[in-house]
Amino acid sequence: MFAPVYLDHNASTPPDPAVLEAMLPYLSGRFGNASSRHEYGRAARRAIDEARDQVAAAVGAHASEVVFTSGGSEANNLFIKGAAVCLKPGLLAVSAIEHPCVIKPAEQLCKHGWTLEKLTVDASGRVDIGNFAAIMARKPKIVSVMLANNETGVLQDLESLAEYARMAGAWFHTDAVQAVGKLAVDFRRLNAAGVHALTLSAHKIGGPKGAAALVLDKRVELEPLIAGGGHERGLRSGTENVAAIVGFGVACTLAAERQATLAKPLLEMRRRLEAGLTGLGATLFGQAAERLPNTVYFSFPELDGETLVGYLDRAGYAVASGAACSSANPEPSHVLRAMGVDPGLARGAVRVSLGGGNSGEQVAGFLKTLQATVAGLQRLTAMTA
Amino acid sequence: MFAPVYLDHNASTPPDPAVLEAMLPYLSGRFGNASSRHEYGRAARRAIDEARDQVAAAVGAHASEVVFTSGGSEANNLFIKGAAVCLKPGLLAVSAIEHPCVIKPAEQLCKHGWTLEKLTVDASGRVDIGNFAAIMARKPKIVSVMLANNETGVLQDLESLAEYARMAGAWFHTDAVQAVGKLAVDFRRLNAAGVHALTLSAHKIGGPKGAAALVLDKRVELEPLIAGGGHERGLRSGTENVAAIVGFGVACTLAAERQATLAKPLLEMRRRLEAGLTGLGATLFGQAAERLPNTVYFSFPELDGETLVGYLDRAGYAVASGAACSSANPEPSHVLRAMGVDPGLARGAVRVSLGGGNSGEQVAGFLKTLQATVAGLQRLTAMTA
Repeated sequence: MFAPVYLDHNASTPPDPAVLEAMLPYLSGRFGNASSRHEYGRAARRAIDEARDQVAAAVGAHASEVVFTSGGSEANNLFIKGAAVCLKPGLLAVSAIEHPCVIKPAEQLCKHGWTLEKLTVDASGRVDIGNFAAIMARKPKIVSVMLANNETGVLQDLESLAEYARMAGAWFHTDAVQAVGKLAVDFRRLNAAGVHALTLSAHKIGGPKGAAALVLDKRVELEPLIAGGGHERGLRSGTENVAAIVGFGVACTLAAERQATLAKPLLEMRRRLEAGLTGLGATLFGQAAERLPNTVYFSFPELDGETLVGYLDRAGYAVASGAACSSANPEPSHVLRAMGVDPGLARGAVRVSLGGGNSGEQVAGFLKTLQATVAGLQRLTAMTA
Repeated sequence: MFAPVYLDHNASTPPDPAVLEAMLPYLSGRFGNASSRHEYGRAARRAIDEARDQVAAAVGAHASEVVFTSGGSEANNLFIKGAAVCLKPGLLAVSAIEHPCVIKPAEQLCKHGWTLEKLTVDASGRVDIGNFAAIMARKPKIVSVMLANNETGVLQDLESLAEYARMAGAWFHTDAVQAVGKLAVDFRRLNAAGVHALTLSAHKIGGPKGAAALVLDKRVELEPLIAGGGHERGLRSGTENVAAIVGFGVACTLAAERQATLAKPLLEMRRRLEAGLTGLGATLFGQAAERLPNTVYFSFPELDGETLVGYLDRAGYAVASGAACSSANPEPSHVLRAMGVDPGLARGAVRVSLGGGNSGEQVAGFLKTLQATVAGLQRLTAMTA
């Protein structure tokens, strides 16, 4: 396989070699079903218990608050739909910039008597406090606001928001899949502020695909999305994906250990990228807001993002256009639309998301290639205009 | 790890070395998100496409009918709840011996206006045709009957049952996780007879945990359980677990290739086991019915199944008591209860489920160990009586 420089860590991350090493025994000799009452089963159960401790420790939660799922989308659906079914239908509020795996289940609930309000954001992608407070005054029962946005990297001040949600008596959930590993995330502190549930995912932090968790305040009543054998305290049935859970645990430990050390070099690379992009005439999104240290989201006026991503891929750089997770959808990004970005500019959106394995040389090489690619495409656009 | 002889293949199976080998690139260099529009993403997408073809081919389905899920429990919940939400509440019928991941979602629907009928079985575990026909006459909208039972290994005559369900106009689903790999399973033929959906799972057939599929007749309207980015034709969102799906594909190919060859030695071992068990005074369940070639389910009067499994484990043989997948539940097996087995005898239930890696020597060794263990426990019971 031709291997371009990977600059798309918000879409997925290379599993750490230590993660794979920890997983391998559970993909070969230790293949037992964790519910089995023999040595193969007990070995699997012990491994899951250890991973649960690791996941909990990485986000300042208690092991008993960790509900393993197959992915972030499942965890988000589990919270939104699982909590709703235990309540009388009412108002539910999610930010307009949530990932589709929060927005779509919220929309599904509208068929079952719920009313959905999408919380607006300002031009830099931060939840609009005035709008938020006004909607909270209408006493929503469920609120979901992501910690960091997957496209822009923009962070939300959850503790301030949670205060309003708490006064409303709402269950407050946050999708933190993009935040964990890139920021210090402390569920205990968020929980004290009024956040009741948090989603994190293994493959966003150097772990494997197939494992994620909903960290859940036990006061929240939840009906399982996947009912059956009663696994995960009855909240998520199905034979545990032991190997992926083991990899998730190790990835969490590594991510927590490395986060503080990685933040500085990532931020330096991001700033270098941003300076270079500005120099090339790009518009940068979310600039006025606090952002993840690894994410840059930009657009060149009159250049199509998809096209640019294609050229960059062939030139040896893997980046994303719009939101990678729903690239089946050719519409301009709903996140940029919510920020009031002009649709033409939004269609040009390209995301670079760095990882610990990237280097300053790669950033410099990317900028050089981008400059040549953009110049070429601009000439082409000028010729055909 | 102390490694007993593994005789619990209905709980989970050792991944085939070829499966692990195929997975490894997707757990290291080929880590892309299949939705990403660069080489890493395309490599992942190609791998999923190939696996989809392999899964479809193994069960006589079309690739476009395969919906990947994280496991059999998810696939069963997706069908039961996903189909129900698209229909007006009415009658739903599932056999009394279904796995909890069919029965529980069916019970959840009762809170949403549905009426659940559990289809009865006869003393050997076959769905009672008289009862089935009577319930079909009441026009259920959804019917689910498993192809092979996980505990007894007893097979159902789906084609005959589907005829009644078709006259009722019901969507007919079958949980085939225990049948695939042990029997020839042909979705096209079942579909022609009136079966609309079929569940199979990777880790029951030498594949990894974390991948399974719902094979679905496209006429069935289904709402996703996990909504979001629109993966799997909108029926199951979430970043695909590429490595597990790749392993699933290879496992399906191997299972289909080996099934016919393996059936005979498995059946020979099963018969040897059954003869030995009868000689030791055990009661065998489901004897009068056609059964999987690999499964034996038995009980010694007055011996507790859990206890026996514990002794056998320490003596070097990994077997199951009751249903391994829900061993959290100490109640006697609902399958045996449905068959009218005396609760005392049911509490003694032990399952041996063979795999292609087992040998006649292992079966002989097991019988010898069992004889000694049972004799020891019977002496103990007699002393304390």
